[in-house]
Amino acid sequence: MAVYTEVADEELAAFIDTYNIGKLLSFKGIAEGVENSNFLVHTESGYYILTLYEKRVDPNDLPFFLNLLQHLARKGLSCPTPVQTTDGKLLGTLAGRPAAMVTFLDGMWVRRPKPEHCSALGEGMAELHLAGADFGMTRKNALSVDGWRPLFLQCGGRADTVVPGLEAEIGRELDFLEANWPSDLPSGIIHADLFPDNVFFLSDKLSGLIDFYFACTDAFAYDVAICLNAWCFEPDLAFNVTKARALLNSYCRVRPLTGQEYDVLPLLARGAALRFLLTRLYDWLSVPEGALVTPKDPREYLKKLRFHQSVDNAGAYGLDI
Amino acid sequence: MAVYTEVADEELAAFIDTYNIGKLLSFKGIAEGVENSNFLVHTESGYYILTLYEKRVDPNDLPFFLNLLQHLARKGLSCPTPVQTTDGKLLGTLAGRPAAMVTFLDGMWVRRPKPEHCSALGEGMAELHLAGADFGMTRKNALSVDGWRPLFLQCGGRADTVVPGLEAEIGRELDFLEANWPSDLPSGIIHADLFPDNVFFLSDKLSGLIDFYFACTDAFAYDVAICLNAWCFEPDLAFNVTKARALLNSYCRVRPLTGQEYDVLPLLARGAALRFLLTRLYDWLSVPEGALVTPKDPREYLKKLRFHQSVDNAGAYGLDI
Repeated sequence: MAVYTEVADEELAAFIDTYNIGKLLSFKGIAEGVENSNFLVHTESGYYILTLYEKRVDPNDLPFFLNLLQHLARKGLSCPTPVQTTDGKLLGTLAGRPAAMVTFLDGMWVRRPKPEHCSALGEGMAELHLAGADFGMTRKNALSVDGWRPLFLQCGGRADTVVPGLEAEIGRELDFLEANWPSDLPSGIIHADLFPDNVFFLSDKLSGLIDFYFACTDAFAYDVAICLNAWCFEPDLAFNVTKARALLNSYCRVRPLTGQEYDVLPLLARGAALRFLLTRLYDWLSVPEGALVTPKDPREYLKKLRFHQSVDNAGAYGLDI
Repeated sequence: MAVYTEVADEELAAFIDTYNIGKLLSFKGIAEGVENSNFLVHTESGYYILTLYEKRVDPNDLPFFLNLLQHLARKGLSCPTPVQTTDGKLLGTLAGRPAAMVTFLDGMWVRRPKPEHCSALGEGMAELHLAGADFGMTRKNALSVDGWRPLFLQCGGRADTVVPGLEAEIGRELDFLEANWPSDLPSGIIHADLFPDNVFFLSDKLSGLIDFYFACTDAFAYDVAICLNAWCFEPDLAFNVTKARALLNSYCRVRPLTGQEYDVLPLLARGAALRFLLTRLYDWLSVPEGALVTPKDPREYLKKLRFHQSVDNAGAYGLDI
């Protein structure tokens, strides 16, 4: 949960006045997201989410994110839609931070996804991949294979304090993935962080995708691999092939995987597991003692990585060929 | 900011079904309040605030708080109104905690109150005092004069680590206040925590009072004294007599202070300052090192206490006799 920034009354009113959304009626910090400060804004014209971008977001990336959301919304995808100021801008400044207003999206994220949720996710993700096809901007994925070793160099030395032998295990995996990572897969706009808390449902129907702040240009199948990790393991970390089958087959009904994508899916799933293992390990080792926020346990992704290492081919994920 | 409790999907849906408010459309944690978990709930019938009562609230007090809000709302006071379940209850259970749903109240709290806000506050507080007159339940104020020494005994021994000499200074003040605290003032329902963040405004008009979880039966003038402390000092802790005058005179237009209340107002203001000095001192000394939440500085209330000690009579607060 996160609200890092206090906003002064007059400054807020002046900021709201740059939009054509009526007078401000309510303004509440929202306990969601960990990167930015988010506020629920009620005005005479409706409900909105105002985001103040804090340190961890590169301001140079914001035009990509906001234009992408606008593009996707115009394509009919359900996602937060940036509101333009009266002079046509998507990005403003509030409390010294870059700030943007988006439409409020109904829906709840599912704490315990069922196969039908995974099926809806597969379809929604494929629609996102298709909708992004003619988006004009690109953004490199800073957390793909090139970004893992720098992360490992920063936190690997203390990895064994978390799990004995972890530094060597990650090192071996990294060597393997760097040597074998495919570079010629079908690519385009991917979300890159489609965890359950970023997917809204209403009565088991997908109602929207949110939090595009890791979106980038990368292999579509890597997005699929991230979701296999995030949606298809049970709380005890057993792989649920029913959920994976639902996710993959519904994805393929909208955007069929190519033969090459099918072949490398286990490899991509290993990479996706390593990516979250590394960022969680980094966060785990960086949190000051006594802090009230508990970082997510990196060991969850170590277990997922080991599972994917044991997978021979994508058939193990339940994908019908 | 506070959301302490995760709520499971099915349990939430079942809980919402106990109300006649339509299907759930959205559910977001709100970064407000420090005692309880608060959620913004959007259903087919509108917006609500759902509160899960965490450890610091005594469940035995909840019927008092919820019935009071219902009583005040029926009297026309603008405050969150508890929603009844289909079988007429104000209090339910969710995620193992007592839980209540109240109406969403528009308005924003004012970060830098001006004299006109203090004037509106005076009027609103007096209206609250009158509206509570025929409420049938009572609740002792656990943080009035009887509650201060137990607090002091718990944290006084380390007070000098905050300000040298503070333990003796508080001890002397406590002796004085215990010996002189009046017991026969006009009493009834008071809010007891009417800080700026609990008073909503829309375009400089008071639009509602919130957070009644310190409400109790005590002297009306003690509520006034709390507000003198909370609203009438500048950021540099200079007393702003223009704000105090605005607050007191508008209060008196709705509910005139008696001669006795007028006489003891400086004493009550000292007591109110000591109450917040003690609770802040307790919190200050109880927070673990490295915690991400910074407790409020107790020294602010030491300076306010010293100001009120220098006040001879309520005329110094700008009150027209």
